[in-house]
Amino acid sequence: MGSPLEHTLTDAVLARIEGNADPRFRQIMTSLIRHLHAFVRETELTEAEWFAGIQFLTATGQKCDDKRQEYILLSDTLGVSMLVDAINHRKPGSATETTVLGPFYVPGSKHLPMWADIAAGLPGVPAYVHGRVLDVDGKPIVGAELDVWQNDAEGFYDVQRPGASYARGKFTTDAEGRFGFRTIRPVSYPIPTDGPVGKMLLGMGRHPYRPAHVHTKVSAPGYEPIITHLFVQGDPYLGSDAVFGVKDSLVVEFVAHSAGPTPDGGNSTVPFHTAQYDFRLVKMR
Amino acid sequence: MGSPLEHTLTDAVLARIEGNADPRFRQIMTSLIRHLHAFVRETELTEAEWFAGIQFLTATGQKCDDKRQEYILLSDTLGVSMLVDAINHRKPGSATETTVLGPFYVPGSKHLPMWADIAAGLPGVPAYVHGRVLDVDGKPIVGAELDVWQNDAEGFYDVQRPGASYARGKFTTDAEGRFGFRTIRPVSYPIPTDGPVGKMLLGMGRHPYRPAHVHTKVSAPGYEPIITHLFVQGDPYLGSDAVFGVKDSLVVEFVAHSAGPTPDGGNSTVPFHTAQYDFRLVKMR
Repeated sequence: MGSPLEHTLTDAVLARIEGNADPRFRQIMTSLIRHLHAFVRETELTEAEWFAGIQFLTATGQKCDDKRQEYILLSDTLGVSMLVDAINHRKPGSATETTVLGPFYVPGSKHLPMWADIAAGLPGVPAYVHGRVLDVDGKPIVGAELDVWQNDAEGFYDVQRPGASYARGKFTTDAEGRFGFRTIRPVSYPIPTDGPVGKMLLGMGRHPYRPAHVHTKVSAPGYEPIITHLFVQGDPYLGSDAVFGVKDSLVVEFVAHSAGPTPDGGNSTVPFHTAQYDFRLVKMR
Repeated sequence: MGSPLEHTLTDAVLARIEGNADPRFRQIMTSLIRHLHAFVRETELTEAEWFAGIQFLTATGQKCDDKRQEYILLSDTLGVSMLVDAINHRKPGSATETTVLGPFYVPGSKHLPMWADIAAGLPGVPAYVHGRVLDVDGKPIVGAELDVWQNDAEGFYDVQRPGASYARGKFTTDAEGRFGFRTIRPVSYPIPTDGPVGKMLLGMGRHPYRPAHVHTKVSAPGYEPIITHLFVQGDPYLGSDAVFGVKDSLVVEFVAHSAGPTPDGGNSTVPFHTAQYDFRLVKMR
């Protein structure tokens, strides 16, 4: 059934890639064309569905600007970002697992001293996050850098509010590989749903929420840098993260404390949380 | 090799599509996610390549406006448009074959009398295109409508030139199923190469040319309408159309004539071409 072209077209398209094309580009385009055609054949896409696809892809591109990357959101919500992450960061079992960078990273955060408060002035539950940076044998790494960022108690990152700058900072491990900073407990929040990706999630019957987390980039000379999150244990969205970023090993208990002594040697007049995590880095190959 | 997530992620993403999603949307997204993930696994896409892909898709969306549809161009140049066409227009062997609509169709062209000149005032080689509209048994269809459009002698469609309107028209078949119109011989031309799709073609070592053709939409009450081209026999790009639109049955000889009598009963003082083609439509099912 069907015209001969229906069955010969894929090979005809592949034959058109010249032998002198860059071998890696050729390999990528060959795989892409094969899968794209297989998708069309498998679904027997109607012309109206094809056009809806064209409109979706166009609208997704047009939703992007210097603050919004709807295509990364699409990649995240279809599990593609986490798959790319998994393939590119195959590590020994003892190393800290990685997860998505997300769209809210901003390079150039300020270096801050141990126990500085990255959320000074923000409403929210005070939290003290601390631990060590170790190698895979458990040896402390001195002078490792932690770049951390997170949202506020209403679920927004600073870059989502015009002109705002908060809840970001860089910390350096001490002679025993220790780091510590003060913040507020992050909250779960919906990824932006006012664009094409939001409509797609709705169509699939999916919610847009991510479980609460603190983003971290950890690096040290001679070690492979990692991009990961610390997730808040008990969050209702841990089992259904809209971007599939959760790994069990990254879920951390935020322990509730009454007012009293805090890990930085101070004293809190209000209840607070503490969270402890040791990162483990792999030597650069 | 690789983390467990690398192998379980596709099923985790698919499991998230709710049972209450529209069944067809579910089917399409399931196939899309499977193939997208298979593509990433097969190529072991690096993070830099993934990001280059994000940038390409974004730029393709942002190149689109009310006159330019870069995503249709992408679909065309990857053979996806022709595949969708083939799947949606499986016809008996005697019916006229279909091909891509292309980005230059404009609805609402004027109805013109037989032998009207759609290219009046345009430089180029005069051409008389004529034939019949028949059913698959060869019986003439009276009152069938031909909507035709083509480029000028420099390779541009009117919509590519601000404010211009030319080389389009609608014709109706007479009591014997005949149509005829005057035009200029179309020329081969490059699809737009100033956008992301142009760069992609270059990377694959492909040229951007389409062989010369006249676009036609043919419809008649009670018959399935068709969208097709008449290609000019002898064109150097017939074997390598940038959008894979050529089918042998759509290649027509443009016969060269010296100055003298023309098919419309007139007389030409300059050399001209004639092309003859009978369209065959299938009864509406």
